[in-house]
Amino acid sequence: MVSTKPPSGMRDYLPEAVYKRRYVIEVIERVFQRYGFHPLETPAMEHLSTLLGKYGEEGDQLIFRILHRGERLTRALAKVHPEVADLAELGLRYDLTVPLARVVAQYGHALPRIFKRYQIQPVWRADRPAKGRFREFYQCDVDIVGTSSLLAEVEVLNAVSEVLGELGFQRFTIALNHRVLLRSMLEAAGVAAEQEEAALVAIDKLDKIGPAGVEAELRARGLSAAVATRLLAMIGGEAGTDNTERLKVLRDLLPAAPAQAALADLERLLVLTADAPAGPHLRLTPALARGLSYYTGPIFEILCEELRSSLGGGGRYDNLIGMFSGKQVPAVGFSLGLERLLLLMEAEQMFPPLRLTAQVMVCALPDTPLAPVIALATRLRRAGIRADLYPEQSRIGRQLAAADAQGIPYALIVGPDELAHQAYTLKHLRSGEQQTLDEAGLIAVLQQA
Amino acid sequence: MVSTKPPSGMRDYLPEAVYKRRYVIEVIERVFQRYGFHPLETPAMEHLSTLLGKYGEEGDQLIFRILHRGERLTRALAKVHPEVADLAELGLRYDLTVPLARVVAQYGHALPRIFKRYQIQPVWRADRPAKGRFREFYQCDVDIVGTSSLLAEVEVLNAVSEVLGELGFQRFTIALNHRVLLRSMLEAAGVAAEQEEAALVAIDKLDKIGPAGVEAELRARGLSAAVATRLLAMIGGEAGTDNTERLKVLRDLLPAAPAQAALADLERLLVLTADAPAGPHLRLTPALARGLSYYTGPIFEILCEELRSSLGGGGRYDNLIGMFSGKQVPAVGFSLGLERLLLLMEAEQMFPPLRLTAQVMVCALPDTPLAPVIALATRLRRAGIRADLYPEQSRIGRQLAAADAQGIPYALIVGPDELAHQAYTLKHLRSGEQQTLDEAGLIAVLQQA
Repeated sequence: MVSTKPPSGMRDYLPEAVYKRRYVIEVIERVFQRYGFHPLETPAMEHLSTLLGKYGEEGDQLIFRILHRGERLTRALAKVHPEVADLAELGLRYDLTVPLARVVAQYGHALPRIFKRYQIQPVWRADRPAKGRFREFYQCDVDIVGTSSLLAEVEVLNAVSEVLGELGFQRFTIALNHRVLLRSMLEAAGVAAEQEEAALVAIDKLDKIGPAGVEAELRARGLSAAVATRLLAMIGGEAGTDNTERLKVLRDLLPAAPAQAALADLERLLVLTADAPAGPHLRLTPALARGLSYYTGPIFEILCEELRSSLGGGGRYDNLIGMFSGKQVPAVGFSLGLERLLLLMEAEQMFPPLRLTAQVMVCALPDTPLAPVIALATRLRRAGIRADLYPEQSRIGRQLAAADAQGIPYALIVGPDELAHQAYTLKHLRSGEQQTLDEAGLIAVLQQA
Repeated sequence: MVSTKPPSGMRDYLPEAVYKRRYVIEVIERVFQRYGFHPLETPAMEHLSTLLGKYGEEGDQLIFRILHRGERLTRALAKVHPEVADLAELGLRYDLTVPLARVVAQYGHALPRIFKRYQIQPVWRADRPAKGRFREFYQCDVDIVGTSSLLAEVEVLNAVSEVLGELGFQRFTIALNHRVLLRSMLEAAGVAAEQEEAALVAIDKLDKIGPAGVEAELRARGLSAAVATRLLAMIGGEAGTDNTERLKVLRDLLPAAPAQAALADLERLLVLTADAPAGPHLRLTPALARGLSYYTGPIFEILCEELRSSLGGGGRYDNLIGMFSGKQVPAVGFSLGLERLLLLMEAEQMFPPLRLTAQVMVCALPDTPLAPVIALATRLRRAGIRADLYPEQSRIGRQLAAADAQGIPYALIVGPDELAHQAYTLKHLRSGEQQTLDEAGLIAVLQQA
């Protein structure tokens, strides 16, 4: 017997799961469109020359490659020592940023100079599957390409905050930091170049292990007590001081021009969002490092307080979008973790009532002529009612049970008498209540269902 | 330089193309949901053991396979003569029917006994790319699994007809035939077993080459004049006689029980849809063969009259869904050709005005404090208005030009005076007309835009 499970790390979505995913995606898209972002879609496959070298060595290993076919495969396998490069030249999309960079290089002339796009599509990574980690998962990216203005950061932060708000998330924090500030802090604290990575890993854990934990970890990683103390003074305590106070501390500790400019950026972001969706959620977090080395300016990460879980992150990355064109193209973006959002919303029961079923099951009694029943179902549907039609003219108990099992609230029972008198029996399945209605009445009741 | 084109046979969808695709998909989904169908989604990848042998030898060659990684790949390449089976065990989805069959086998207990599902997802085929033929394209399938009732055919035919109607297709025909009738005709005409395939290919061209052409082709393929005459008598002329008359002719010519039963099915389908969406479009077409050998009952194909182009097809296939479970599971389905629909709608300009742009571009004049402008944009967006915010505080001419280039109808011009008086200038970009409005007035005008 062939296994009928989906491949490891991938999932089938039965209707209820699809409806939930669609609900979240629709909220995200509606908000992004209100913010003037437009959708982009790119193919599942990319040339390996587009993908390789963009995600680090580990990332390259996780790309799913497409095996050659036909003659090219035969030729490759005829070699004495065929190599991977002989076997494949296409791979599956690994993220949505590299395809965006490719699209900007390819269609730049046809796109607005400042291009606001969102993209919600699956990506594939050959990671070891684990709880909450899949090999096929959706990314949900929103980016503004083509401007260095901080208003781009503001737009992205507000759009994402509004999405979370509309999905029902109340208590979330957007940790805010700046790549240049981070670098200045390391320098000012006296972290040696070869210890920068270790220092970043340690301070990034502030939220989880607290200042004492970070200090211990810094020392364990070979940094001196003096360096650790200076770093801790800059990043502050676990709960964080308020934004204004933290700004002041950093201004005093980091007098160099690049740090002052970065702090000015951060202060401006706080001011500009004061009466906007992101404002109440932003928390200056000098310990925020974020893994990706491609950021060049402000960086953000959303933390859901109840669950100490990251819902996504982003930042400014001015050197990436231009990688295919050779021109520098400034950009800022945010990636929401769709699968994480869905897991949390499921756990916290945050879904509104979704349209999971038809509003009515049309049931024809045995010995009822079917053409007029079908015509009636057609008229209900044309009135916008989601009407299922039980496709077998079996005994009524069976039909009602099938409707009830699917959670369909009403059954419309049609027999020869009903057709003759154009008076139909509408049964509410949960309560068992029945009413007799003409067609207009039927439509009126069902449109409310 | 790396090429920035998408891989051969695949496409990038820039925003306008995405909006058009979404429009069509949304109409399809809305109608299918009104008919009580529910969405299913399955992973892009399937086990090769699931895929191979389901699409014929040629199909197997067109499956994109996923190359092993890491140690498994190293082991495979270390073999003296590695074979394809050593290199891959996963492939990309080739259609939506095999995944449906797998899902029914895997989750049968959790699904309703009669399962009405639709699925709109991309599939991948390593076909030679050509005009209108892609290697990544969407299929749009609707199926009813679990019942032999002809009402299932009726539901699928009506749903698809309603989709086409809502998309604006008026003059389309659904050619209707029956596998059993087709087989009976060949037998009754005296076509030898080894010539069946040739005969089917010839008569399937009736629409294109007319009765005389079919006769010539049948003779050219080695069928006798007597056989050709008998076949032509059954399939009728090019334009087709009316359904009732054609039924009568076939009833007389094909007295055997299986043919009579098939004709009874077809007559019933015509009767049951008489006052339903499919009715006016159904045309009994005994020459319709359809390529796929898996059909077992009624078969259908939509032909767009203006363009002599197939928009999709389907039929009953009672032996396929059970292939993984070993149980027989009756099913009927229809596959709409999404890419074909889009091409035709583009050619015939059938798209309604779509929401391709924001309704307004919020433009801050130089030297305007930005926080209140952002707050104003937030309030517009919360009133449901799609408001873009020009992210650079450049001179107004440049901002208006950018808005106009994107087709955004209005610009909202905000300077220090406007903020002080809470009276805003709304400029209609095409006409150049300006009006001064308070916030409520602004929202009222823009909500109409």
